[in-house]
Amino acid sequence: MHRRCASPAEQEASPAERELALSSLTGVISTEELLARLAKIVGAGSVLQGESISEDLTHDEGLVSVPQSPVAVVMPRSTEDVAAIVALAREAGVAITARGSATGLSGGCVPTPDGIVVAFERMNQVFEIDESNHVAVVQPGVTLGELESVLRPRGLVYPVSPGELSASLGGNVATNAGGMRAVRFGVTRNNVLGLEMVLGTGEVVRSGGKYVKSSTGYDLTQIVIGSEGTLALVTEVTLKLQPLYRHSATVLAPFPSLDEVGRAIPTILASALTPTLLEYIDVLTMSSITASEGIDLGVPDDIRQRTTAYLVVVLEQRTEGRVDEDVESLGVLLEAASALDVFVLPGQAAASLIRARERAFFVAKAAGANEIVDVVVPRSSMADFLDLAGKLAAEHGCFSVGCGHAGDGNIHLSVYQPDEAIRDRFMMELFRAAIGLGGAISGEHGIGTAKQEAFLELEDPARLSLMRRIKTAFDPLGILNPDKVLGTDSEEGSS
Amino acid sequence: MHRRCASPAEQEASPAERELALSSLTGVISTEELLARLAKIVGAGSVLQGESISEDLTHDEGLVSVPQSPVAVVMPRSTEDVAAIVALAREAGVAITARGSATGLSGGCVPTPDGIVVAFERMNQVFEIDESNHVAVVQPGVTLGELESVLRPRGLVYPVSPGELSASLGGNVATNAGGMRAVRFGVTRNNVLGLEMVLGTGEVVRSGGKYVKSSTGYDLTQIVIGSEGTLALVTEVTLKLQPLYRHSATVLAPFPSLDEVGRAIPTILASALTPTLLEYIDVLTMSSITASEGIDLGVPDDIRQRTTAYLVVVLEQRTEGRVDEDVESLGVLLEAASALDVFVLPGQAAASLIRARERAFFVAKAAGANEIVDVVVPRSSMADFLDLAGKLAAEHGCFSVGCGHAGDGNIHLSVYQPDEAIRDRFMMELFRAAIGLGGAISGEHGIGTAKQEAFLELEDPARLSLMRRIKTAFDPLGILNPDKVLGTDSEEGSS
Repeated sequence: MHRRCASPAEQEASPAERELALSSLTGVISTEELLARLAKIVGAGSVLQGESISEDLTHDEGLVSVPQSPVAVVMPRSTEDVAAIVALAREAGVAITARGSATGLSGGCVPTPDGIVVAFERMNQVFEIDESNHVAVVQPGVTLGELESVLRPRGLVYPVSPGELSASLGGNVATNAGGMRAVRFGVTRNNVLGLEMVLGTGEVVRSGGKYVKSSTGYDLTQIVIGSEGTLALVTEVTLKLQPLYRHSATVLAPFPSLDEVGRAIPTILASALTPTLLEYIDVLTMSSITASEGIDLGVPDDIRQRTTAYLVVVLEQRTEGRVDEDVESLGVLLEAASALDVFVLPGQAAASLIRARERAFFVAKAAGANEIVDVVVPRSSMADFLDLAGKLAAEHGCFSVGCGHAGDGNIHLSVYQPDEAIRDRFMMELFRAAIGLGGAISGEHGIGTAKQEAFLELEDPARLSLMRRIKTAFDPLGILNPDKVLGTDSEEGSS
Repeated sequence: MHRRCASPAEQEASPAERELALSSLTGVISTEELLARLAKIVGAGSVLQGESISEDLTHDEGLVSVPQSPVAVVMPRSTEDVAAIVALAREAGVAITARGSATGLSGGCVPTPDGIVVAFERMNQVFEIDESNHVAVVQPGVTLGELESVLRPRGLVYPVSPGELSASLGGNVATNAGGMRAVRFGVTRNNVLGLEMVLGTGEVVRSGGKYVKSSTGYDLTQIVIGSEGTLALVTEVTLKLQPLYRHSATVLAPFPSLDEVGRAIPTILASALTPTLLEYIDVLTMSSITASEGIDLGVPDDIRQRTTAYLVVVLEQRTEGRVDEDVESLGVLLEAASALDVFVLPGQAAASLIRARERAFFVAKAAGANEIVDVVVPRSSMADFLDLAGKLAAEHGCFSVGCGHAGDGNIHLSVYQPDEAIRDRFMMELFRAAIGLGGAISGEHGIGTAKQEAFLELEDPARLSLMRRIKTAFDPLGILNPDKVLGTDSEEGSS
């Protein structure tokens, strides 16, 4: 279930390295005492240290984050455990990094040097599926796959689908995970109603609840969502559920240019067809993901040769008749928007294509991609951004291909350029281009450490200062994932 | 357009009272200098003082907030004006209260004693309707009615509808305004993509933008929405728009008990019929609002006599055929859920009923209601809450009737009991009951001053402290609407 925690250590730090790491602990408590007291809180079997910390626990799925060994990995079972761990970390002056399934792509859960990792894999209970209120209450270690298996038989769905069923809900909250269904149902932020969390002060605080609206003080739920473990450790999540639509169709439309894809999007969204999924996939990415999954979409050669990008649209409705009707309307729109053709994919091919699209990152990773871009721009500026990105890639001698959540203006490019310095310059220009078009550095992957340099350089200093003050409000001692997102003040100073 | 600012002073403070207020200014700047410098920023014609401040400017629409005269009312025209006003207020140590159309119900925009009011009526430009991105960019003084008149011809809609077209977007952001359409489209929080704001530090900061998702640092937009002018002065709002549905039907179902209304709600929402509006109206409220608007809904006497509450459901779809089909499905559901009958209201009657429902607060006010309740509970607990409320009303010798956003669990009760002490005890019990059921004090009206005592008494102290630290992060000197929501520390201490 928690696939990153099972395998034995592979690239363990040497005993000498470990010794060095431990000796730099700055608190008043010795490492031995810290480990003993952690064991007292959660039981010795729930504290990993030294050789027992597998290599898997030192990184996430990101392409550029540097693996890091923690002093200890602690696996709490309850909110009380977490509060006690935070209290101890405060006393010891030790940093805490929260870890879900570690499927993140920006290094957000990579251990803080000399810190401890709080791994939520044993806090994996679904507390409640409340069918009257369409709400689920879960612990942060529950995975999207586990939740789905509980919901589907009841005709309910948690609609956020970042494409990795082994991802945990706690991790989804930390990064404000998005994914393909966001165009209709929004991202994590729009589907979380409440949290229980342990602040950096050690206090347990609840926010929100089983209701969809409140004007009762500041919204603590929303500020914590997307904060990548730097404001609080989330110990319970209340999720908004949707009824499951049982009728759907998947439409594939090849386009001669990205510009034409870009122009098709507003028309589709203005039509009130409310697509559940609205993805663009460039022709190279489509080739590689379909090849990797062994799919033949049945697009004739003559059309394929004129295609620069595909648009994939999924429609879901209450009845089959409505799906058919909407497919018809969509077809007319797509043809008017210069699609080369419109294909309605049979169920099997449709499912395979969506699965292949979900695996796009891993296909790129296997193909040797060096970095992944996750910018968001106003959706009407997507074509402009991709045009700019192409020019910048040529200029910097980088190669980039991709796909993206077209309905959201969220673009994923795989960047191929092994030289870090060249790549960094290219990436920085891409980020500048996105911001210049009114967008942001990350649409759904988060800042972590991977995009931290760009974030600290390109963000408005007044906004950064405000975020630092908010960080202090939640975590006065700065013990929660201190090296991620905002980093420390000195890092900002050096940027 | 800004109806609260036009009429001349009616209950002006006496010169002696005014003198007293002015003399207590604590800053290093004299009142004369403050007024002169405000005039320098915005022009003398945009600063009201003394007799030129009308009675209207001393209050909102709330039933219990106490009118208060400010030292000055300033009417900026630009973000630069607002930033300069905040800088001056910092220097002078003077409080600032933001004011939109003053249609609020909790006292949030009532002037702070000895403070200045920043009235946004001259910052009323619609900067942009971006049809490609389905986004509007507006100044805070733009009203919902003005926005609607610009959007409707383009086939677009800003779906938040708190029921008062003269309300301003800035005010909507301040209270996280909700209204009848929230069951489908969410509240203000779910429909604002970005803000420009002036912090209590005087800095101008932007958050979000023309995109629906971001994982780039903390979400500053969401924490400011619903903060009732205590964190920042909002100077620009980027709104998410929806396509206008041109086909709709309004269904009215009388029920023998509130319990049965309560049980019907989850069934309707689980059906994926996605109602745009799902309201309950108790029989007394229905009588008074229909009488006030002169509407005859055509419900036969024998059914009316057995009715305790009505459910009103609006369905909107892309085509007339779908509306008809959905009305059919809804009718079956409602009958199975013990509705006494199901009526499809003709267009005219439907529009009148919705308008009457929107005016419910004013009908209650005219009937002498002393207070209004706005609690939110999990929607399945609505019937339990109303049952408890009935018992508490009998116990405390109060009379309460109401209606509410049934799909959201947001209940509005008008409370009739002129004795403040008795009423306060009853209200406090109602709030406790809502919180006990897993709800919150305010669903959409905000805390302001009207619910501040209950808020400070019933909120978790750790959460209050965290909110105070967040307040300090945005507004270190505590000059933004300091007496609202959290109030000052001393008020907390005394609670």
